[in-house]
Amino acid sequence: MGDGMKAFIGLSGGMDSTILLAELVADGYDINTYFFNYGSKHNAKEFVAASSVARYYGVPLTTIDMRGILATTLSGLTSDAVPVPEGHYESESMKTNVVPGRNTMFIAVLLSCAQAAGGGKIFLGCHFGDRVIYRDCRREYLVSLREALYIASHWEVELQFPYITETKSEMLLQTRDLNIPFELTTSCYKGGELPCGKCGACQERLEAFRLAGMTDPLEYAK
Amino acid sequence: MGDGMKAFIGLSGGMDSTILLAELVADGYDINTYFFNYGSKHNAKEFVAASSVARYYGVPLTTIDMRGILATTLSGLTSDAVPVPEGHYESESMKTNVVPGRNTMFIAVLLSCAQAAGGGKIFLGCHFGDRVIYRDCRREYLVSLREALYIASHWEVELQFPYITETKSEMLLQTRDLNIPFELTTSCYKGGELPCGKCGACQERLEAFRLAGMTDPLEYAK
Repeated sequence: MGDGMKAFIGLSGGMDSTILLAELVADGYDINTYFFNYGSKHNAKEFVAASSVARYYGVPLTTIDMRGILATTLSGLTSDAVPVPEGHYESESMKTNVVPGRNTMFIAVLLSCAQAAGGGKIFLGCHFGDRVIYRDCRREYLVSLREALYIASHWEVELQFPYITETKSEMLLQTRDLNIPFELTTSCYKGGELPCGKCGACQERLEAFRLAGMTDPLEYAK
Repeated sequence: MGDGMKAFIGLSGGMDSTILLAELVADGYDINTYFFNYGSKHNAKEFVAASSVARYYGVPLTTIDMRGILATTLSGLTSDAVPVPEGHYESESMKTNVVPGRNTMFIAVLLSCAQAAGGGKIFLGCHFGDRVIYRDCRREYLVSLREALYIASHWEVELQFPYITETKSEMLLQTRDLNIPFELTTSCYKGGELPCGKCGACQERLEAFRLAGMTDPLEYAK
């Protein structure tokens, strides 16, 4: 399907972008991946995971330093002063983890990279569960933004969001045959030695595996 | 008109954003200005100009460090390896000055800042003459992006582009009564001691003053 067309994706080292990468590799795209260094507590772990995943699939990974930009925003993810909340991913307490407009900034950077490389498709791993917390992961937003990016790039860059109506467990089920190396990925917001199993990201991940009838290969803290 | 509503603008130290700021001050907005440090050759001069303009109008100026992001893009504005072209602002040679998607990145950052501050209006100084070189300064693009930003911010952030159908000389004429301190501003792409008067930005500026029947207070290199 990809026919060697250029694809540009953010690779966070988490499950969603890893599933997306696995599908794009299977589809034959010429893939460029980008790691966004935004100075979060779990960023160091994420970088190790993203690098491992990129190496596994043999795709180039470029690090984009977002720290200068995000120094002006406040967030539980980036500030040591705000504790990471525990609880369900979609619950109200998780909203302190939101860097306002973060996804929009990431997409703007991917647009710039795609344009500099002569165009192609930007793929996002946003799924149905993201809509509650991240307003800039919503379908109606991404449809408007896709139009804007078409125009900005003279129809050379297309925004795609293949999982926008799917849940995380559906993503897992649909890509079961791809043997994705989830043991290389990381999700925990706390960034400890082992994933905590309690924060919103861990709970969302564990729930997705449970609903898909699959086993998460990661070892969790007791 | 502004009624103390929050306004967010990029302040480059050039004419367009200075005219925009002067109008917003006259309209009574509560203004936050942002300087984008993207490591260009004329960036040091721009920062001095932006700071002087912000001080003149008594508005806060925040510097956003874009260098980490833009390190991945190539451009005549940021790379010492590519000479700044001379000639008319709208001519083909000026296209090497375009950082792809730069305006989109700036707007994404302003969105983040506006959301973190509880919402308000983002104003852009893009004018009719920008459309030739900068695809992400075009009206059809900004209309789509405005819709996207509305959705991303739950209708708390509105994108405005008041000069999109006006030329630079029309902007000058319309704000003639505001006594804008153009002697504090800078436009030259070369960033020398005195503006060169030859690069696209200088030529565009001089043409705008000429068409408006006004005099540019800047001293130019012989």
